[in-house]
Amino acid sequence: MKKNAFYAQSGGVTSVINASACGVIEACRDNKDKINKLYAGNNGILGALHEDFIDTSRESKKDIQMLMQTPGGVFGSARYKLKSISENKREYERLIEVFKAHNIGYFFYNGGGDSMDTAHKVSQIGKKLGYQITCIGVPKTVDNDLPFTDVCPGFGSVAKYTAVSTMEAALDVASMSRTSTKVFISEVMGRHAGWIAASSALAAANGVKAPHIILLPEVPFDKKRFLKKVKESVAQDGFCVIVVSEGVKDSKGKFLSEVSSKDAFGHAQLGGVAQVIAQIVNENLGLKYHYAISDYLQRAARHIASKVDLEQAYAVGKHAVKLALEGKNAVMPIIKRTSNKPYQWKISDIPLSRVANKEKKLPKAYISKDGMHVTNQCINYLSPLIQGESHPKYVNGIPAHAKLKLIPVPKILNKDFVIK
Amino acid sequence: MKKNAFYAQSGGVTSVINASACGVIEACRDNKDKINKLYAGNNGILGALHEDFIDTSRESKKDIQMLMQTPGGVFGSARYKLKSISENKREYERLIEVFKAHNIGYFFYNGGGDSMDTAHKVSQIGKKLGYQITCIGVPKTVDNDLPFTDVCPGFGSVAKYTAVSTMEAALDVASMSRTSTKVFISEVMGRHAGWIAASSALAAANGVKAPHIILLPEVPFDKKRFLKKVKESVAQDGFCVIVVSEGVKDSKGKFLSEVSSKDAFGHAQLGGVAQVIAQIVNENLGLKYHYAISDYLQRAARHIASKVDLEQAYAVGKHAVKLALEGKNAVMPIIKRTSNKPYQWKISDIPLSRVANKEKKLPKAYISKDGMHVTNQCINYLSPLIQGESHPKYVNGIPAHAKLKLIPVPKILNKDFVIK
Repeated sequence: MKKNAFYAQSGGVTSVINASACGVIEACRDNKDKINKLYAGNNGILGALHEDFIDTSRESKKDIQMLMQTPGGVFGSARYKLKSISENKREYERLIEVFKAHNIGYFFYNGGGDSMDTAHKVSQIGKKLGYQITCIGVPKTVDNDLPFTDVCPGFGSVAKYTAVSTMEAALDVASMSRTSTKVFISEVMGRHAGWIAASSALAAANGVKAPHIILLPEVPFDKKRFLKKVKESVAQDGFCVIVVSEGVKDSKGKFLSEVSSKDAFGHAQLGGVAQVIAQIVNENLGLKYHYAISDYLQRAARHIASKVDLEQAYAVGKHAVKLALEGKNAVMPIIKRTSNKPYQWKISDIPLSRVANKEKKLPKAYISKDGMHVTNQCINYLSPLIQGESHPKYVNGIPAHAKLKLIPVPKILNKDFVIK
Repeated sequence: MKKNAFYAQSGGVTSVINASACGVIEACRDNKDKINKLYAGNNGILGALHEDFIDTSRESKKDIQMLMQTPGGVFGSARYKLKSISENKREYERLIEVFKAHNIGYFFYNGGGDSMDTAHKVSQIGKKLGYQITCIGVPKTVDNDLPFTDVCPGFGSVAKYTAVSTMEAALDVASMSRTSTKVFISEVMGRHAGWIAASSALAAANGVKAPHIILLPEVPFDKKRFLKKVKESVAQDGFCVIVVSEGVKDSKGKFLSEVSSKDAFGHAQLGGVAQVIAQIVNENLGLKYHYAISDYLQRAARHIASKVDLEQAYAVGKHAVKLALEGKNAVMPIIKRTSNKPYQWKISDIPLSRVANKEKKLPKAYISKDGMHVTNQCINYLSPLIQGESHPKYVNGIPAHAKLKLIPVPKILNKDFVIK
């Protein structure tokens, strides 16, 4: 009897994670002789634990194609990390119970570092608990911090968003700087790795003088040298554009955002490193500033997705199914750069055991000598990733999005599972 | 002897103000038999006071056309409001001196409410100081608060940006809400009028359930009722998207953002009403939140401009020259809506005296009964304004922009003018 497959989305979503879903779904449909039905977990791994599946076979071809232009996670995502089998065997036994009941032989898990760890743990239930299942990770993260792959699907689009919005804001600030705002601060995502902040350097590709300063989590914040560079930039160009990673830390390794939020409100979450930087500029230089925090807007901005990124997100989804059908297990497709100019790439794969719990940060060679910008080598790496546009279809003045039926798979076990 | 013309950009820029510049420049070029050269003021009215002109006749046709896809103010803008002639006669005498020296007979001033006031004052120098000059205001403001005109060029594009980004972020939050963020807050511009916040309602045009709450400067913030609605939204949809105008005030008329910034830092400028709202949600409901502040990104986002808005911005620029050549003076072109479905508009004009220093706020009929959303009547007004896309040409993965030569006009007076 042909096995069914399970697919789920995990962790923070991206503007193109649904393109990976589209790739997995279409590849399963193309291989109906080998894979019976593809069930999607409602909210990531929780869908498996709660026997809460969506039957993707009930969706039309057209609706599945609309996933290519739909941001967010269409099946719901979850931030939930499985413990190891020895620590929480109960959860794995439950997974096996559910998978058995629904005849699931393939497990496709679409996420970042934590999710690849989960996928890796699930892949061990064959050896450790005797339930054979083929586990394939599908990479995704705007943070671009997965090792081995040239790039993580989702990153190219947020990089394009960051480059474009930095360029646009720079033109705005430049025109206002004579009598108004002189310093513009843009806070971007990146708690531990500065890839998104670094991508703002691409704003200068067509000659705009910005950003002047990029603050990375990899480089401890040096207030004195920072202020000096702000001053110099304003003296030279009349304005200063600063892009700051949310995860910038002080010399003691403390998040700048935490320092501030605790002073002000006694809460740790409130953060906003942009505001801290703004305050430092204002107090020390007395310059008028504005700041932006694009937060979810950056990772949801499908309307300005990179075509390269979209294609890669789709390709890793498709390739995951190919790997499974070739009999590979506990692996993740990765992007290999085969040429830089012109940018060419192919898909390869890597064992999940090597991926899990590793973070790829900006290498030293990508960071400028003063620690407040990036090198040409970094720009050469980043530039191909934001190439090409894939404008969504607009209806009523805004992008159309997939409206799936999301029909649940009838429960077989139908008994509650309480997450502890 | 044919007169020269003066054009300048004033106040906060928009993503399409350069389309108005393009309209003015092209119309002057089309009327070379009547208007000699068009000089642009370097940084608004300051360019006139400092005899600091850019010779637009030195720019190529192609470069001028690129203005259609270039955000920011290409000639530099300025926040500088002229006092009345009786209060600061010296400045008007200087203007006349400069205009005389450069044979300027036409004055085109591209800005919002304050700028129309300046244009109106300049128009009085004919009667009051004997220097005949034709003054035409060219409307522009993302705030959409100029009276008489159906819409202000610049607003349609920020409305489209707001609708699209709210829709995209809503899909993101919806997919995360089961295990993570439940409340998303997006702060938008609008110090006194809630037009931009209101436009977020267009996010729902294709069925996305957002925004749940729109906080407008026109409605005093009611914490209790606000929290109730947040709770209800989360109970119903699993998440709550809130769009908040930067200018929301409490029942005593105090900006919410000020209340906070003073508590925290003792500064008035730091603001960030999004953070205040986030704090209220967190303290009272304990829900995980994220917030975005798009700030300049929203008004610079030419990449997602509304085609209707772009066309209107261009048209008012062109029409301003037409009005001048018809012998009109001290007027401003306005957009008249002649049909709602399909949306049709034409250009008319209104005396500057009637425009200056008036603010158009959201009418009561546009605000929902509970004060935290907008009515269908409001949506019917807004919807046509965001229709159509005008994707810029991309080079190196980001939008190309006009790179003007910006050749200065040789000074004739060549003497300093000190602004007091």
